[in-house]
Amino acid sequence: MSNFLRTGRKIVAIGRNYADHAKELGNAIPKEPFFFLKPTSSYISPGDGPVEIPRGTIVHHEVELGVIIGKTGRDIPKSEAESYIAGYTLAVDMTARNVQDAVKAKGLPWSTAKGYDTFCPVGPFIPKSKITDLSKVGLSFSINGNLKQSGTTADMIFDVPHLISFVSGIMKLEEGDVLLTGTPKGVGPIGPGDKFQAKLTYPGLDGQVLDQYEMACEARSGGYEFKG
Amino acid sequence: MSNFLRTGRKIVAIGRNYADHAKELGNAIPKEPFFFLKPTSSYISPGDGPVEIPRGTIVHHEVELGVIIGKTGRDIPKSEAESYIAGYTLAVDMTARNVQDAVKAKGLPWSTAKGYDTFCPVGPFIPKSKITDLSKVGLSFSINGNLKQSGTTADMIFDVPHLISFVSGIMKLEEGDVLLTGTPKGVGPIGPGDKFQAKLTYPGLDGQVLDQYEMACEARSGGYEFKG
Ligand SMILES: [Mg+2]
Ligand SMILES: [Mg+2]
Ligand SMILES: [Mg+2]
Repeated sequence: MSNFLRTGRKIVAIGRNYADHAKELGNAIPKEPFFFLKPTSSYISPGDGPVEIPRGTIVHHEVELGVIIGKTGRDIPKSEAESYIAGYTLAVDMTARNVQDAVKAKGLPWSTAKGYDTFCPVGPFIPKSKITDLSKVGLSFSINGNLKQSGTTADMIFDVPHLISFVSGIMKLEEGDVLLTGTPKGVGPIGPGDKFQAKLTYPGLDGQVLDQYEMACEARSGGYEFKG
Repeated sequence: MSNFLRTGRKIVAIGRNYADHAKELGNAIPKEPFFFLKPTSSYISPGDGPVEIPRGTIVHHEVELGVIIGKTGRDIPKSEAESYIAGYTLAVDMTARNVQDAVKAKGLPWSTAKGYDTFCPVGPFIPKSKITDLSKVGLSFSINGNLKQSGTTADMIFDVPHLISFVSGIMKLEEGDVLLTGTPKGVGPIGPGDKFQAKLTYPGLDGQVLDQYEMACEARSGGYEFKG
């Protein structure tokens, strides 16, 4: 599963799963989880190049705990969900916010807003044994050294077993699939020339650093230009 | 590439790409293509079981030409698009129409409406050499022997090279990815107990049968229930 980035076939990303983040975007607290798909072609590892800012887009950062699925399952009961987890990864759900706002207003899919190349930075595989209490994961995100997001998974609206159970009742989960579990408040724009620092700690924000990385952002040359 | 169903990592599905179909759903003709993602976990081969009708959903059939990508490309010019095609497949883009209508009204993602298990029936790999003029592919779809959809790719708003170029300017295309190219008019409900027949012909609707298959639909037991 350390190879999930090359072998996994699906990224299921949960929306508005931290109450404070839902509020900051003016959204209601969802009554049940909802999710969208990011393509695996949007994966990028730190060190494999910059995150690209596509032409015409305003890109926001969303730091998230990624849950890596270890075996195929469907209609997984919450009580068994944990056994489907192989490990974790520190992920960023890059989002073209102006594209997303435009498609939301038109009732169109989110796939472009969420699916550009390099829009899913992920660090290495973190073995499951490193995180024994899923409510105590610390996530933080800085731009050019200035802290923008910091929160813990204690603030999730729907916990990880709930998410695994919910998603697997709609689409089966398979080995190497990644579940992005939502982002704490503090999202905002990041642009060409910026460098960001993402960090995953346990237990809590003052715990051990399980992963951290820095990546640069650059303007994408060529490709689709969003014109509103 | 005959193995695209097991090795491919992305299904990119184009919306409203036949003018008559856009009209029948009351949608405007798009000025540029738009697309959504279906998960590869929604693939099903004829013979591998029924198409499932999830609880609480009204499912519509959309018969489509699937284009199977043969090599990785990004920002592919229209003039080179054809060289990225490995072959074709006869696909059905199953759609939970009531779920889609609900999420469109709320500005939410289409991923659930389009991504349930068994929502992407696909036939075997059809070698590229079998179709020399991409504007002459015939598609038809019947339920219990009654013809519901029949049309040819001549009615596409954006042709296949345009679609490949457009999508690859947003997300790179990779070997085994499938592009669903839109559906002709005649979509409608299909439910438990129905059997459908899909057919792909060339050249035109009276040409040689390149693929045809029949599948049954059954009510899904368990899983998520859509309640509106
Ligand atoms: Mg997110
Ligand atoms: Mg979507
Ligand atoms: Mg379709």
